[in-house]
Amino acid sequence: EILGAIEDYFSTSSEKPLAGIKTLVTAGPTHEALDPVRYIANHSSGKQGYAIAQTMQQLGADVTLVSGPTQLSPPQGVNVIKITSAEEMLAACQNALPADIAICAAAVADWRIAEQSEQKIKKKNNEEAPTLNFVQNPDILAILSKPGPKRPGLVIGFAAETEQVTENAISKRERKGCDWILANDVSPETGTFGGDENTLFLIDKSGVDQWHKMTKDAAAKKLSKRIADHLTLNV
Amino acid sequence: EILGAIEDYFSTSSEKPLAGIKTLVTAGPTHEALDPVRYIANHSSGKQGYAIAQTMQQLGADVTLVSGPTQLSPPQGVNVIKITSAEEMLAACQNALPADIAICAAAVADWRIAEQSEQKIKKKNNEEAPTLNFVQNPDILAILSKPGPKRPGLVIGFAAETEQVTENAISKRERKGCDWILANDVSPETGTFGGDENTLFLIDKSGVDQWHKMTKDAAAKKLSKRIADHLTLNV
Repeated sequence: EILGAIEDYFSTSSEKPLAGIKTLVTAGPTHEALDPVRYIANHSSGKQGYAIAQTMQQLGADVTLVSGPTQLSPPQGVNVIKITSAEEMLAACQNALPADIAICAAAVADWRIAEQSEQKIKKKNNEEAPTLNFVQNPDILAILSKPGPKRPGLVIGFAAETEQVTENAISKRERKGCDWILANDVSPETGTFGGDENTLFLIDKSGVDQWHKMTKDAAAKKLSKRIADHLTLNV
Repeated sequence: EILGAIEDYFSTSSEKPLAGIKTLVTAGPTHEALDPVRYIANHSSGKQGYAIAQTMQQLGADVTLVSGPTQLSPPQGVNVIKITSAEEMLAACQNALPADIAICAAAVADWRIAEQSEQKIKKKNNEEAPTLNFVQNPDILAILSKPGPKRPGLVIGFAAETEQVTENAISKRERKGCDWILANDVSPETGTFGGDENTLFLIDKSGVDQWHKMTKDAAAKKLSKRIADHLTLNV
């Protein structure tokens, strides 16, 4: 049983295959303020990213976790940096470089409001609801993937899709310039966001590897082992 | 000491001054979906509304709490109905009528997106960020305050303001047609949203009563005693 083998790997491996490997993990949602009381959020719970940070640390990696607002306890032995917005997440990631590996599991807001209001936007009688103009947030995965001296040797992104999951993710990998993409279907009926299980596709330059449905913790272990094999066995 | 008197009122009163009084309380934020993964939220924690539901129940009231998404445990002895959006909150409130008292402590989203996307809104390269059009949500406080056979005898609203707190709240009371407004300053520097303390102004037709800064639990007791006095002593 494959999962059993991974469990063995974690429980019996006394050596630390990722010892000294500097790893940056992002997790959770970002919140983009509209005004002092309102914000745009998303349904990311942070569970998958926190599980990855923990399993990478268990294999010996030196892990920095840049986390948006979540209800989760910080993983043990991990350097956790809490941020709120996408711009803050980018700044924290850039501060954490150089790193050998970057794993971008956060569900970063694609957009923020063009002009954030310093006071609460008031509802007025007999007036239309406001139209909000948005601007694109920095694309953290694409920025970390950009070739250059600070690019981590292995950059891994996530693609949360609700349709054409693998097609969208293959195109995302090429567009962003990252090495691997973990894609999943986050349609509400899957219960992925906020839930404890995940059905992932690992996409690299050689193709698509579909993983069985498993807990987010098991998926984190499978990914961490795959990373360790990649670094040590070059697979 | 005023707060001491209220504590005594709660601890020594063996009778239940609000016995049989049907009370509807709303609490927490509402979340308005933009698409399957994104939503607009606000910083309401639900603490004040949950505390009010609990203290009303302690004075004997038959309490239904309609709550948006919060991290709080349900108050004991209270009928809790969990909802997500403003439209769901309105439906749950109307289901809970008739009621003698309605206390609208929820921070209901004023707007929802005009056309919610069934699929995740995709970010495209070299394209402008989307412009989102909003429509007004139903005004639950105004709807509950509307004269008619189902109007609760006492309708109490909250006004979360970041400027001109009492002026905005006095005007809100008249606009909504409710009986009392509890106004507070939720500017980020006050720490009110998510915090455990509140500085409230009670506004009724006779004027403005400023309460000292106190815990949300103490404010709930003060409000519940004030309601009991209003019903029994007509003050």
